[in-house]
Amino acid sequence: MPEIHRLDSRDTHFAARLDALLAWESVADAAVTATVNEILAAVRTRGDAALLEYTARFDRLNLTCGADLEIPQARLRQALDDIPAAQREALETSAARIRAYAERQRLDSWQYTEADGTVLGQQVSPLDRVGLYVPGGKAAYPSSVLMNAIPAKVAGVGELVMVVPTPGGELNELVLAAAAVAGVDRVFALGGAQAVAALAYGTETVPAVDKIVGPGNIYVAAAKRQVYGTVGIDMIAGPSEILVVCDGLTDPHWIAVDLFSQAEHDEDAQAILLCPNADYIDRVAAAMDELLADMPRADIIRTSLRVRGALIRVRDLDEAVTLANHIAPEHLELSVADPDALAARIHHAGAMFLGRHTAEALGDYCAGPNHVLPTSRTARFSSPLGVYDFQKRASIIHCSAEGARVLGRTASTLARGEGLIAHARSAEYRVSDEATD
Amino acid sequence: MPEIHRLDSRDTHFAARLDALLAWESVADAAVTATVNEILAAVRTRGDAALLEYTARFDRLNLTCGADLEIPQARLRQALDDIPAAQREALETSAARIRAYAERQRLDSWQYTEADGTVLGQQVSPLDRVGLYVPGGKAAYPSSVLMNAIPAKVAGVGELVMVVPTPGGELNELVLAAAAVAGVDRVFALGGAQAVAALAYGTETVPAVDKIVGPGNIYVAAAKRQVYGTVGIDMIAGPSEILVVCDGLTDPHWIAVDLFSQAEHDEDAQAILLCPNADYIDRVAAAMDELLADMPRADIIRTSLRVRGALIRVRDLDEAVTLANHIAPEHLELSVADPDALAARIHHAGAMFLGRHTAEALGDYCAGPNHVLPTSRTARFSSPLGVYDFQKRASIIHCSAEGARVLGRTASTLARGEGLIAHARSAEYRVSDEATD
Repeated sequence: MPEIHRLDSRDTHFAARLDALLAWESVADAAVTATVNEILAAVRTRGDAALLEYTARFDRLNLTCGADLEIPQARLRQALDDIPAAQREALETSAARIRAYAERQRLDSWQYTEADGTVLGQQVSPLDRVGLYVPGGKAAYPSSVLMNAIPAKVAGVGELVMVVPTPGGELNELVLAAAAVAGVDRVFALGGAQAVAALAYGTETVPAVDKIVGPGNIYVAAAKRQVYGTVGIDMIAGPSEILVVCDGLTDPHWIAVDLFSQAEHDEDAQAILLCPNADYIDRVAAAMDELLADMPRADIIRTSLRVRGALIRVRDLDEAVTLANHIAPEHLELSVADPDALAARIHHAGAMFLGRHTAEALGDYCAGPNHVLPTSRTARFSSPLGVYDFQKRASIIHCSAEGARVLGRTASTLARGEGLIAHARSAEYRVSDEATD
Repeated sequence: MPEIHRLDSRDTHFAARLDALLAWESVADAAVTATVNEILAAVRTRGDAALLEYTARFDRLNLTCGADLEIPQARLRQALDDIPAAQREALETSAARIRAYAERQRLDSWQYTEADGTVLGQQVSPLDRVGLYVPGGKAAYPSSVLMNAIPAKVAGVGELVMVVPTPGGELNELVLAAAAVAGVDRVFALGGAQAVAALAYGTETVPAVDKIVGPGNIYVAAAKRQVYGTVGIDMIAGPSEILVVCDGLTDPHWIAVDLFSQAEHDEDAQAILLCPNADYIDRVAAAMDELLADMPRADIIRTSLRVRGALIRVRDLDEAVTLANHIAPEHLELSVADPDALAARIHHAGAMFLGRHTAEALGDYCAGPNHVLPTSRTARFSSPLGVYDFQKRASIIHCSAEGARVLGRTASTLARGEGLIAHARSAEYRVSDEATD
């Protein structure tokens, strides 16, 4: 039977044990930060030359000029043409659903007019240019290309620039095909902190962007944190998590493999079950035991469950809701008879999967909502990636002459209270003006 | 005549000179970062004891226990009762307008049902607890208390915790009164990185919050950057800026003092005028000369204008729009005959002030839209502070049995393409299920 923490909410020290299990801190150590700062500075000052050097060193890819870094559109199209038809259809089905959901998220401009003719509002614009980081190697997921790129395109972003490392020159055909499906505008064979630097500062070949999104390793995360301010970033993601709340009436094999589907991501991933029924928990454990051998990533699953996984017996579903709000999970499956009643009481989660049929995996790939979600309890204050992350607002203030006279008095009083006399005088000019609109 | 950069867009090297003027990098040096990290670690591990030590050292305030740090609600109420009636009325008028605008920004939950009964949606919740940093000393602005606190309360934040340094025990009555008007729940006499640490990690006395907003000095900014991830933060603000686009038909005294109103904030603030009329620019310069002597903060204004200010002659208003989008200013005054036509073509600005009567100062205090705005060209990718900064979304996915069967096939294909077999199996269980809803 795979080793996994077994907790009961009635245990003394339960809260402390749970918090110890949840604790996660992805701190880049001083060595990582120093390396990243050096790479950022080199790319910023030496541009393409530095990019080519780092790409030769880290990706074993020797290119002669900056232009060689670009993977042309024709190559993306070729990948899409060459992959099996079933995969192409799945990518296109998924893309269509992600797009349909994203369309509902788009923010619109608005304004209103007050009695004296003063207009207030909010004008929404898309970002001009966005960079999308796509990891290479084992974490190269075409689904992530769709999830990051499509909301940006729906927002109306002018140019979407993707970077993806190609160690030893190896291209991931599904990733390229996904880029073609999503409408990515330009792709560069770049990874690591040097790719983040190129997107943030621009080089002779890579255009500077306004925001960088997409997951990456610790160097990529540290680089994104450093360039935040010069450009926007999405979030600093921790390991993936699932919390399953089950009433004990779902097929235990379904729950077992739902927990596996998170645990298989990597050794730090976290899979937790909350259930009021101790017998059912044992049946899930038995199903895990039965199914684990079939899993190609069994070693990863085993480590993840042993280190960070838990089967937790709770008093009842009310307590499960309280704990779920404390855990603020990235993914929350509500595998219960009346999931709507529970969902209405959840305040902190990245995405909720309601009912026994809604496996998290359906949301990971094709239900429509984004799979880029807040991890490590950050759902307390942040949201899934969405169209709104690629739009921004500008406030609109258009005072009528009459409106300015009235507001100017209030502004003058407050400005003088703060000792800001130029502010006060600026407001007072509009108070004393005799103009009418 | 105050010294200020004079540029013409027809000059050779104009673009480079403009970019040099705009360049701003608020990098915390290694010494600041080391100090901040030490303070964060001390407060995290030693709680109140560390807070009391730092408050004694940095704010010359010797308190005996954590509870002494709290400024009680009765003290806020007393401040509101004791300030002059005109100031109280101005605060309340301003608060009502900020609230009315904020109400329009609130995000709502939504969902939709697909043909097969699958429900997709987005559930919006307020943050549980938010921390508001208010600077002490010369930058203690009651208007900022209103602008930060009111959107949080409109969002439905459960508890709003304010920190404000009180050097030598000195309280700012207007700041306390503003906290009372805005409905701040708790106030602590704390400042600097130690205040940020207390809010991020919690101590025996100060409750841990989910997000920290509000401006501060370089130590506060560095501390916010460090705790980002543990809690949310609003933004790392640079010096304030105004860009005025004028057609040359506004009273030049108005424009002069509008530029002053930004320059008086601090020596790093930036005030720029774009105008196609060289004679008019000279008249603005003459008005500046005439008015400067009257300004109590003339020394700050003079330095700000000399170092970072500019009067720029442009070819026409079309070019002014292009430059404004490049500059992406925090504040953009469109002091022209038809400001709506120009505003529609502005994609990057924090707030736009339309027409000759809309002085930026009116927006700073009481027009309604927030005065916490993206600086240093970050309007390319970020928005004014708003109600939406105190709400977050959770995705909702509720598949019908039929919906899960269809989606499961697509998910399985993509999961197998990514080599994630537990994901595939999780989806496939729902495909093979015979249930109906």
